[in-house]
Amino acid sequence: MSQVNRQILLASRPQGAASADNFKLVDTPLAPLADGQVRVRNHYLSLDPYMRGRMSDAKSYAAPQPLNEVMIGGTAGEVVESNNAAFKPGDKVVGMFGWQEFGTSDGKGLQKVDDTHVPLSAYLGPVGMPGVTAWYGLNRIIAPKAGETVVVSAASGAVGSVVGQLAKLAGARAVGIAGGAEKCRYVVETLGFDACVDYKTGNLYQDLKAATPDGIDGCFENVGGEGFDSTLARMNAHGRIALCGFIAGYDGEPLPLKHPALMLTQRLLVQGFIVSEHMDVWPGALKELGGLVAQKKLHYRETIAQGLENAPEAFLGMLKGRNFGKQLVKLI
Amino acid sequence: MSQVNRQILLASRPQGAASADNFKLVDTPLAPLADGQVRVRNHYLSLDPYMRGRMSDAKSYAAPQPLNEVMIGGTAGEVVESNNAAFKPGDKVVGMFGWQEFGTSDGKGLQKVDDTHVPLSAYLGPVGMPGVTAWYGLNRIIAPKAGETVVVSAASGAVGSVVGQLAKLAGARAVGIAGGAEKCRYVVETLGFDACVDYKTGNLYQDLKAATPDGIDGCFENVGGEGFDSTLARMNAHGRIALCGFIAGYDGEPLPLKHPALMLTQRLLVQGFIVSEHMDVWPGALKELGGLVAQKKLHYRETIAQGLENAPEAFLGMLKGRNFGKQLVKLI
Repeated sequence: MSQVNRQILLASRPQGAASADNFKLVDTPLAPLADGQVRVRNHYLSLDPYMRGRMSDAKSYAAPQPLNEVMIGGTAGEVVESNNAAFKPGDKVVGMFGWQEFGTSDGKGLQKVDDTHVPLSAYLGPVGMPGVTAWYGLNRIIAPKAGETVVVSAASGAVGSVVGQLAKLAGARAVGIAGGAEKCRYVVETLGFDACVDYKTGNLYQDLKAATPDGIDGCFENVGGEGFDSTLARMNAHGRIALCGFIAGYDGEPLPLKHPALMLTQRLLVQGFIVSEHMDVWPGALKELGGLVAQKKLHYRETIAQGLENAPEAFLGMLKGRNFGKQLVKLI
Repeated sequence: MSQVNRQILLASRPQGAASADNFKLVDTPLAPLADGQVRVRNHYLSLDPYMRGRMSDAKSYAAPQPLNEVMIGGTAGEVVESNNAAFKPGDKVVGMFGWQEFGTSDGKGLQKVDDTHVPLSAYLGPVGMPGVTAWYGLNRIIAPKAGETVVVSAASGAVGSVVGQLAKLAGARAVGIAGGAEKCRYVVETLGFDACVDYKTGNLYQDLKAATPDGIDGCFENVGGEGFDSTLARMNAHGRIALCGFIAGYDGEPLPLKHPALMLTQRLLVQGFIVSEHMDVWPGALKELGGLVAQKKLHYRETIAQGLENAPEAFLGMLKGRNFGKQLVKLI
């Protein structure tokens, strides 16, 4: 009797905002495991803003997600069957199996992880792609000096939360931008940022100005739009901007930059990046981040949806900022 | 009988576009030369777009030009009197004496130049600040590889003309953007660019696309606005943008960037710069540029206004692109 693998496919590309209609849940029988293969029961599916980009076929840094295939995504789970000497049942692994309950692989791209001191789900957050993204942008682009001010948007999110905490560890002043009083309180009280500006108050620029009395030396941009315009207007000479995301524009609405000449007048460095092009930094960054999480020096928060069938709704909510911290789907 | 020094002062700051009313011509008696001083008869005054920025008191990389003082500017001339052992009458020198016929100095910031093989005026153009600006942005920011495509705006101008020629010498494809068929013809036929797009045809993006079949790897931006938007839309992954000027926005009109997210999706490096912050490159760059001009491997063109009293009109014309090549004022 073959087991069934539930999967979510990309059924159509969004016209404007993404919607539940763009996804389709299917049941697929699991084929018997071939020689050299390993089968993983996924425990967690990672939901990340970049997936919205893949749903479109606009020119971008990655090929679009093909239609009628399993949605791309990072996963963390447990080996349940193995015909591959490198893996045995019970091994905890992270991979890129996408939006499905089981993953089958020849072992390539599958990483064994140790969940003794670091929870399995953290390998999709602070000790995974979001954490390394934060690490790269902060250390390799912004490179803050002690006493400098670093501003990060989506500050309570999976990436932003790590950016600010790493900035603090580097001796910088960390200022977040987040949506709502609760997130801002968390950013300051739990994550230890020096200040957090609530973009929902309608007073973003003035509040950011008050929170950055010495201007801004480093910007880690996840959102774009008004927050980015406001940050740019506060940048000090020779500031550095790590461009990581423009989530405010993912639905295709125009998202112009009001005063690009500031990049010249302040002699700014602006660098767009995607962390998968910098694989050389991953081992060192993951070791550092894992150590910080194990020692409870790096805090994080998760919003966990239950069940694969709820992944589309959780994903759409995340795009609107309804999650709080790293958005995951628990599959088991 | 004391000699008279004619000077042009900044009389008022522009509200919107700069106008002749912002300047005032005055006659000032020349004080006798003090010990250690040197007096220069300026032969050429350099007119440059950055001066428009100094006329405003908006936040920028340099302090505003003070009102009722001699307008800032580079000059090339001849020592006519000297109480300083380092200079003697007849020496050719470049300095920053500004918009006036005579300059008096203790010798600091005054450079002796050799006009045997390089014409004196070239020290204000390809072998001066504009040339080093081009050299820095091209070599230190864009760093083109052979076969890559470099686009430069204001391509027939003092900076842009050098950018494209240096790009060609580096084995890159050089594409200019300039205003009008005559300038474009000069850029291709005399300067040796591979192509030049006339922004006045109203077909900028399509023409640029046709001129850059392999996309754009390096952008040297002098203008901003539609040309910059179009260039950005053609950038290849990992492209480099040297931000040197936003002359289209110098009168204060909004000049937004339409699709800043392209800086992320193409993982671009954008670096604003001002060449006076990179004095370390000047000696080497000037030596290289001087050699190229002397060997007639680096071409340039000048528009020369006659007489200090015509400097304001020449300057205002340059801001509108009426000059062709380096704009100078001949003072003698």
